[in-house]
Amino acid sequence: MARLLYDLCGIDEDLRFSPYCWRVKYALAHKGLEAETRPWHFTDKEAIAFSGQDKVPVLVDGDVTVSDSYEIFRHLDRAYPDKPLLGDGAAEARARFFKFYAERSLAPGMMRSIIMDLHNAIHPRDRDYFRETREKRFGRSLEEFHAPNKGLSMLDQALEPLRGRLDEADFIDGDTPAGADYLLFGNFMWARCVSCADLVSNADPVYSWIERMLDLYGGLGRNALRIVDIEGAYE
Amino acid sequence: MARLLYDLCGIDEDLRFSPYCWRVKYALAHKGLEAETRPWHFTDKEAIAFSGQDKVPVLVDGDVTVSDSYEIFRHLDRAYPDKPLLGDGAAEARARFFKFYAERSLAPGMMRSIIMDLHNAIHPRDRDYFRETREKRFGRSLEEFHAPNKGLSMLDQALEPLRGRLDEADFIDGDTPAGADYLLFGNFMWARCVSCADLVSNADPVYSWIERMLDLYGGLGRNALRIVDIEGAYE
Repeated sequence: MARLLYDLCGIDEDLRFSPYCWRVKYALAHKGLEAETRPWHFTDKEAIAFSGQDKVPVLVDGDVTVSDSYEIFRHLDRAYPDKPLLGDGAAEARARFFKFYAERSLAPGMMRSIIMDLHNAIHPRDRDYFRETREKRFGRSLEEFHAPNKGLSMLDQALEPLRGRLDEADFIDGDTPAGADYLLFGNFMWARCVSCADLVSNADPVYSWIERMLDLYGGLGRNALRIVDIEGAYE
Repeated sequence: MARLLYDLCGIDEDLRFSPYCWRVKYALAHKGLEAETRPWHFTDKEAIAFSGQDKVPVLVDGDVTVSDSYEIFRHLDRAYPDKPLLGDGAAEARARFFKFYAERSLAPGMMRSIIMDLHNAIHPRDRDYFRETREKRFGRSLEEFHAPNKGLSMLDQALEPLRGRLDEADFIDGDTPAGADYLLFGNFMWARCVSCADLVSNADPVYSWIERMLDLYGGLGRNALRIVDIEGAYE
């Protein structure tokens, strides 16, 4: 069965940095499912219009099309019940919190640290779109929003509960990773692909978890192209 | 079977404000279990020495003694499997994160907002102990640590993922409350019992959740004595 994931790309077609697409790539690997990933640019709205909305990830799984990373997790658990990502009942209810923790606690500090690196990683033809939508969201220019020291301090604070958990367990979800790990790790892949900023010190339990996550599934994360691997691209 | 909970009290024996003891009182109510609560002061170390440590909550459940609120949740799930608090597998792994989120994300901002109210609520004979242990922990005097505006701003930031979840569900754990709700709600009972500070605006989805939590189990939280109910005690 053909399986196709539309995956945001940047200045190079192989530079894939969307945190939401990374969630899905880890979720597919968790289930042992192959998928072709198709590079997509922010402004390629036509290419995914068939999904009824205009953002990636979009997964086409046989005759089913699903967008939104969390909805894709739900779809994968329904269609391939083995090795649950989210689980049922309280497990699923609690998984939902990690989505918000990633997007509302972790992302803001990271964003303030790497926004100019992110801008630099984006394909030139997408940069006007990126600047316009983000400046509207932040209520200020990218340059004004850029505040790495403040961002790192926000992130440091936001990581506190994660440190507590990862001090006692290899993965958020226990001895082996599952949905909660992937929901959060997407953000770390996002930062890693576009920036060489050290967001987490190597003495931090979160750092060791990142290393473990990078190694999963044959080095899925570790082998991903980074902006620093592209000659002349990292300013 | 006799069931006894040692429960921290303050300036009045009926003023019970420990966030960890509140977790357990909600957990017992969730399971439909009765327990006598015995007022305990910070300095009554002798009274709970039989538990092998010196902090409350301590639950004596028949011939089993358990301390630490999370361990008590585990004990209750083992001994009374109906209506799980934590659950198994991924549900339990994820519940653990809420413990750290309560203690490391929510508590610090609350603490900076209510520390002097808390000091005022503590039994006079416990105040030296409280001041000494907390000043050591904070690395400064209570008066220097007291910073309500900073505390409210920290709390506002920390509540973001909780807002996301409570915008879409009545309880963190879904349509009905369970372990994750109680792990967090202990902190809100703590602040409510010792202070009249408005920590959460009434337009916030977290506020509506607090109201629902207060009403559970015949108003377990809503009917609890607050410092403002004690004539002359709230400075």
